[in-house]
Amino acid sequence: MRKIILNEKDMPDFYYNVQVDLPEPLLPPLHPVTREPIKADDLKPIFPQSLIKQETSDEREIEIPKKVRDKYLSYRPTPLIRALALEEYLNTPARIYYKHEGISPAGSHKLNTAIPQAYFNSIEGIRSLTTETGAGQWGSALSMACSFFNLKCKVFMVKASFEQKPYRRILMELFDAQVLPSPSSTTESGRKTLETDPNSPGSLGIAISEAVEEAVKNPDTNYALGSVLNHVLLHQSIIGLEVKKQLKLADESPEILIGCVGGGSNFGGLIAPFVKKKIKNNQIRLIAVEPSVAASLTKGIFEYDYGDTMGFTPLLAMYTLGHNFVPPPIHAGGLRYHGMAPIISNLYKNKIIEACSYDQKSIFEAARIFAKTEGITPAPESAHAIKKAIDEALIAKEEKKERTIVFLLSGHGYLDLSAYEKNREIN
Amino acid sequence: MRKIILNEKDMPDFYYNVQVDLPEPLLPPLHPVTREPIKADDLKPIFPQSLIKQETSDEREIEIPKKVRDKYLSYRPTPLIRALALEEYLNTPARIYYKHEGISPAGSHKLNTAIPQAYFNSIEGIRSLTTETGAGQWGSALSMACSFFNLKCKVFMVKASFEQKPYRRILMELFDAQVLPSPSSTTESGRKTLETDPNSPGSLGIAISEAVEEAVKNPDTNYALGSVLNHVLLHQSIIGLEVKKQLKLADESPEILIGCVGGGSNFGGLIAPFVKKKIKNNQIRLIAVEPSVAASLTKGIFEYDYGDTMGFTPLLAMYTLGHNFVPPPIHAGGLRYHGMAPIISNLYKNKIIEACSYDQKSIFEAARIFAKTEGITPAPESAHAIKKAIDEALIAKEEKKERTIVFLLSGHGYLDLSAYEKNREIN
Repeated sequence: MRKIILNEKDMPDFYYNVQVDLPEPLLPPLHPVTREPIKADDLKPIFPQSLIKQETSDEREIEIPKKVRDKYLSYRPTPLIRALALEEYLNTPARIYYKHEGISPAGSHKLNTAIPQAYFNSIEGIRSLTTETGAGQWGSALSMACSFFNLKCKVFMVKASFEQKPYRRILMELFDAQVLPSPSSTTESGRKTLETDPNSPGSLGIAISEAVEEAVKNPDTNYALGSVLNHVLLHQSIIGLEVKKQLKLADESPEILIGCVGGGSNFGGLIAPFVKKKIKNNQIRLIAVEPSVAASLTKGIFEYDYGDTMGFTPLLAMYTLGHNFVPPPIHAGGLRYHGMAPIISNLYKNKIIEACSYDQKSIFEAARIFAKTEGITPAPESAHAIKKAIDEALIAKEEKKERTIVFLLSGHGYLDLSAYEKNREIN
Repeated sequence: MRKIILNEKDMPDFYYNVQVDLPEPLLPPLHPVTREPIKADDLKPIFPQSLIKQETSDEREIEIPKKVRDKYLSYRPTPLIRALALEEYLNTPARIYYKHEGISPAGSHKLNTAIPQAYFNSIEGIRSLTTETGAGQWGSALSMACSFFNLKCKVFMVKASFEQKPYRRILMELFDAQVLPSPSSTTESGRKTLETDPNSPGSLGIAISEAVEEAVKNPDTNYALGSVLNHVLLHQSIIGLEVKKQLKLADESPEILIGCVGGGSNFGGLIAPFVKKKIKNNQIRLIAVEPSVAASLTKGIFEYDYGDTMGFTPLLAMYTLGHNFVPPPIHAGGLRYHGMAPIISNLYKNKIIEACSYDQKSIFEAARIFAKTEGITPAPESAHAIKKAIDEALIAKEEKKERTIVFLLSGHGYLDLSAYEKNREIN
């Protein structure tokens, strides 16, 4: 079987809350000013009640509302595909599977959380959402989801990506979103940044500051984050839940699960339902792949840090490169983040997951191999996972082991083709 | 059920040859010089034997080779999706379904014929294929298919599209294709055209001349056409065969089938297995939608004409605007063709199918409605089919009829976003 397809009725009805399986409890977020553990009320200016509740829920399963399920069904369940042509090219005894989130109409896994976030905000009377976007994957997803639920959407897009990826901006505008290059002159945070560095390429941290500032100022406006937070990883667990069912259908027991990490949401969603088993019998490896220029797990330290650059957000206990860190403009804009999701940080600190990093050149080489064999042009972010999958398949070849490797193809690269071209020039 | 999904084992094993169902036989193609009916041998310099045989086959079913099926399985069967959100927006009693060929890794239905064409050429010892491309959909598909079967690929891309769509070029180059803007100075046909009009925006007709010239000159090089010919429509019949199965699963009896037409291949593939029923009981409408600026069915005449501009190809009996016709640069580059597939022309002449045309402004409006409701950004070509589906759904609303409408979403528009932006400026 080349593609493992689930029926619509087999799409999960519940999200899987990995918080209940963590080896030690998450450290509480701290208030950015008082540095006391924050209360639910502190988050009310920017998030709806239902998401705040999900953020600290101790229930293992959280129901997916019917209206969210209906929207998911336009593209979910997504296929799990056996990479037969890639295996043949590598001449490996390993069986490589990829979960293809790139068939989402927004082009990536980000729609999995954009839909419930827009939905929960809409039923709590919010009229408008603000957000930041790096590569544009998250901004596209939220623009689309806001259009589904009749919300306005304002997107602060990291300037480096804004300039590299005009198509992403056009796509967001097609869904009536307002898109501003960040740092912008429309917020205090943006103006402050521009005063220091008028040519700042921007960063996710700065863009988050701008979006949060805007949401705090306007009562009918909330903020939406595309990664890092527990409720975001919760929504992404639909990926892992589907993969688990699909692997069972294929009669496969996965030995290695791989995902790229920026804030950690796609990887977090993939591994969520596998963590319990990992802790129990240690017969599976869970591997997070970072870009070497923004490697918070492998080069950062575990400490309380702000989620944004200006220090508006609560302090999170996480691996971080420092909230002032501005990574060089790389093409995988979605991975240019200084911190890591607290859940992923917790799992890494407790050695439940592994991490590794690659430079840009090597991941584009992997992307080209994948495109030419499997025919799918991957997002540069996803290419990090591909690179690791290829490396593990080659190790399996050397060791003559029939290993089952699953990686997450988080998005397609049709809107990143200029990055492919630029990277070719570099090589 | 929102999506009607077929299992891999339900993917058709045979193509459906609609030639056997035509109300009158196809008129034979004529030799471009002698104007005598061509013989199979006349086509040998540019096509492999197996495709020449398919071109005039009188078998109803033609087996799909295993290696072609294997490659199809990376994306086929494609889903048939109920456009619930669009229906709700239109407040129509009609049930609208779309067959989503945009999930193909090349972004459109074109891969359905690119794969078998590359395969049949490769097993007959050909090393290299030439072709033309309008919007870039066909060029992308053939580049990808050539990469699957280790063939070189040279693509003459209509200059207007080459300039409007750099991402398409980059995608083809990612699969190692050589891409030249047409008219180019590398062929006699190109040079002749440039002498007359140095600023020619190009056309499919000119690009075909260039590609054919190159194939005729080189013995290990063949030519591949992405539409018009009988064997191309044959390969696309896999679309209609799947739709037929899917509608049966959904317990639906379609009353209207809609597809856009340039050369006629996606529409031809959609309707192939429905023509027999149409002729028998006339209880289904088959509607071809053209752009008003290149409306060969509704504004052309039925006569023998060349497939290309320079008169290298055989003369085909078809509706045509004249082989010298150069349509104005419109964004739906894939529909800028002067002629129409002989099979579609035959069906139109015999009133088995209907045709209508729309201008650019109205199809982009339809595309925006579809994107905002269904979340999928359609190719401008496909937007022609969407526009007609919307109009028919509104008629059903007026007549208070629960009509079942199926249209073909031939491709996604991620690489056409600059056209969306330009069109917004026009409005």
